[in-house]
Amino acid sequence: MGVPEVINLAEKLASFSDHWNPRRIARYNGNELRVAKVRGEFTWHAHSETDELFLVMAGELGIAFRDGVRRFGPGELVIVPRGTEHKPFAEEECHLLLIDREGEPNTGDTPSQLTRETLEDI
Amino acid sequence: MGVPEVINLAEKLASFSDHWNPRRIARYNGNELRVAKVRGEFTWHAHSETDELFLVMAGELGIAFRDGVRRFGPGELVIVPRGTEHKPFAEEECHLLLIDREGEPNTGDTPSQLTRETLEDI
Repeated sequence: MGVPEVINLAEKLASFSDHWNPRRIARYNGNELRVAKVRGEFTWHAHSETDELFLVMAGELGIAFRDGVRRFGPGELVIVPRGTEHKPFAEEECHLLLIDREGEPNTGDTPSQLTRETLEDI
Repeated sequence: MGVPEVINLAEKLASFSDHWNPRRIARYNGNELRVAKVRGEFTWHAHSETDELFLVMAGELGIAFRDGVRRFGPGELVIVPRGTEHKPFAEEECHLLLIDREGEPNTGDTPSQLTRETLEDI
């Protein structure tokens, strides 16, 4: 089996600079761990078949829901249940660890100019 | 649907002090997020039906595998593939975020004096 690798999240995040373009760093039980840098506003969407986990590594993330807004920072996480409409945003650059079902589009059920069809492995 | 809660990992970890006794903090796609404080040596075991994710929040964790050892610190993670024998250890207290399949025993296939049959939700 060999020995599983150690994944350093800050090193992974330091390897790219563009926004809203998640990279895949590992797989876990049919899900993908992704890292992303974000700034500005994403587009409204939902993921009908997967929960989505957002853990902030640096900066502050906002997520707008139809019934309110959450803002959270390093060491804080939010799990967006499947089917829940949401719109992430960040006034300043924010670094994220995301977990999604394998192959799930970043814009879920609602493609936009920010959809990334394929994710790079880093 | 309401608005999903923000989970602060340091606050969750500050709410208890015993070692090798994970608490459940959230559910994600049929998996459980758990936090734990650990110090000393765990027992050898494997999880035949689930990968297991270890993310260090504070301190340093070691994991012994049959073919080598990994040591890692804050902001670093290791995913132990299902079926892989491993033995976590920590010389000083270490704070962890863990992800396991729902209901998975902490000692997997190999019960020991450190098995926790039921996990508290915090």
